[in-house]
Amino acid sequence: MKERIGKLYTLMQEESLDVIFITLPKLVYYFTGFYTDPHERFMALVCPSGEEPFLMVPILDYEKAARASSVQRIISHEDTDNPYEVLRRHASGKTMNRIGIQAEHLNVRRYRGLMEATGARQAVELDDAIAGFRVLKSEPEIAAIERAIGCIEEAVKETVALVKPGVTEIELVAELEYRMKRLGAQGPSFDTMVLTGEKTGLPHGAPGTDPVKEGQLLLIDAGVFVDGYASDLTRTFAVGDVGERCREIYDIVLKANEHMIQAVRPGVTFGSLDRAARSVIESHGYGEYFITRAGHGFGLEIHEYPSIHGNNPDVLREGMVFTAEPGIYITGLGGVRIEDNVLVTQDGARVLTSYPKELTVIGV
Amino acid sequence: MKERIGKLYTLMQEESLDVIFITLPKLVYYFTGFYTDPHERFMALVCPSGEEPFLMVPILDYEKAARASSVQRIISHEDTDNPYEVLRRHASGKTMNRIGIQAEHLNVRRYRGLMEATGARQAVELDDAIAGFRVLKSEPEIAAIERAIGCIEEAVKETVALVKPGVTEIELVAELEYRMKRLGAQGPSFDTMVLTGEKTGLPHGAPGTDPVKEGQLLLIDAGVFVDGYASDLTRTFAVGDVGERCREIYDIVLKANEHMIQAVRPGVTFGSLDRAARSVIESHGYGEYFITRAGHGFGLEIHEYPSIHGNNPDVLREGMVFTAEPGIYITGLGGVRIEDNVLVTQDGARVLTSYPKELTVIGV
Repeated sequence: MKERIGKLYTLMQEESLDVIFITLPKLVYYFTGFYTDPHERFMALVCPSGEEPFLMVPILDYEKAARASSVQRIISHEDTDNPYEVLRRHASGKTMNRIGIQAEHLNVRRYRGLMEATGARQAVELDDAIAGFRVLKSEPEIAAIERAIGCIEEAVKETVALVKPGVTEIELVAELEYRMKRLGAQGPSFDTMVLTGEKTGLPHGAPGTDPVKEGQLLLIDAGVFVDGYASDLTRTFAVGDVGERCREIYDIVLKANEHMIQAVRPGVTFGSLDRAARSVIESHGYGEYFITRAGHGFGLEIHEYPSIHGNNPDVLREGMVFTAEPGIYITGLGGVRIEDNVLVTQDGARVLTSYPKELTVIGV
Repeated sequence: MKERIGKLYTLMQEESLDVIFITLPKLVYYFTGFYTDPHERFMALVCPSGEEPFLMVPILDYEKAARASSVQRIISHEDTDNPYEVLRRHASGKTMNRIGIQAEHLNVRRYRGLMEATGARQAVELDDAIAGFRVLKSEPEIAAIERAIGCIEEAVKETVALVKPGVTEIELVAELEYRMKRLGAQGPSFDTMVLTGEKTGLPHGAPGTDPVKEGQLLLIDAGVFVDGYASDLTRTFAVGDVGERCREIYDIVLKANEHMIQAVRPGVTFGSLDRAARSVIESHGYGEYFITRAGHGFGLEIHEYPSIHGNNPDVLREGMVFTAEPGIYITGLGGVRIEDNVLVTQDGARVLTSYPKELTVIGV
């Protein structure tokens, strides 16, 4: 934690800032070891230039913060307080012309509150710099991600054993989420997706009361948080015989997934990974049906830097973790997505997910 | 939907705005009937002055939007597009000096993107005005909230039957969330809370592997979304004989809950409700242990306007729905919270929750 906060103070000097506000709860955790979801209440790790950092928390989180935070100075505010006035009292006398913020996570109302409380003239976006700290995962972070992957793989395996014609998407979601929790997950890392038949053709479809039917595809996209870190797994299954067209699509997506992973090594661009996956799908004539990016970084959050799309010129570095998830989505027919979690190693990739990838017939 | 969007256009005139951007996914649902979670991708309902509204969605949500949205004009953008440039193309030629935004939900990066794309000089916060539309629930909205309450009450009832010494907090969370889903919930409306023993003294405690023990309090705070609408229920139980002090605290909190609900009627202030609950707890000498506000509005979101704290001068109106949740939290001993969901009627309150409130001994 101290080393991480040290990086913030270095960044403050580099950017000539007077204070940095860390407002995303997951990042307060990253820098202090204390996690809470304060909902609409104000919480921030405040790092004033030349002074020790302090935490501002709603009073009902004070006890928890005092137990868990590596930052010792904790200032609480009550629901009847204006948190910006509390902040102003603790910052009185200091010049704060340039403040550092998390522009992707700070809402406009809080931004205006902070600008007024500090009297700042400029708010500098630190998102990219902080994403740069976070993108290289430490050994303990990779270990947590592997625990999250182990948990979702076991939960999916147990749930797949329950699939049979007639069971509904939301029943399978319930079974899957029950098993996650029993297996030690803090919770799903995003809305658990179980889709059947035509609905597999919707990259963002919502599970409903549609029943599993023989001869259809079944797509499961699910992940968990374990010890604060996420996993994100997709597999597509065949409920009985899904026909030649679906099998063809499956094979193409699997090749695209493998081709993308083979392209992973330090120094290449994220754009080139997307193109590696896309070129396979395009070469089989399905380019127009691959309507998503090829993957995204994750860790403390389910979506982190980088976004793996064709125009991303940033380069891979050892220690980055992201998803590889090409897909083909055909309205009226269905879709296939195969998603792995990949770690960039010194000379290539380590695929952290181990769930089988060949087309598996289930439920009959 | 049309009537709701009509109110936005009236607001636009009143505030002399050139365009309104609705960016919170739940509010896009409120105004169009289309719901998705676009994660970090850009989505907005755009209402330009003097023109028909249009939806901007990520391309992978296009199909779903076309099916569900009452707004017919839908513009999609791909992951490789800059959504603000897409917006600028569709807005070219229009003067946009004053834009209306949701300041509590728009992050600074998007705010800056919208300001640049529109060339606007001023962004007016519409949060309070829109909260004003939403705070009065229609009959269908109340019916959805009642379905969400029925679902969580049944799930809690079934889960309470499983409580016995040795079962852990997270196991009970898993059982509860499994049952929610089976009973038709879209998911929990917030992180399900099951706390035992001393941890009941933390208003925002996190469930862990602590086992239920005889002689301790057990607190369950849980809710679900059904058809987009939330419920929010807390009950505190006695696992066996919890002793005189815990029983005393329970009785005081129950009186505070009832006193608060008796004070509900159109025309009184939210501050007076908080004080009604607080006065009971203070009169028994526990004032310093009631460290939260007395309640909050909810509906499409689990926390909506109003915040029920002592300084809120706003007045109750028929059709408002909120929680009544006084509590006493004693570090090292434990805590009690009893939370109901209340609808303001013409001449008083209708308590929508029906779960028994007397101290119930379970698990032995």
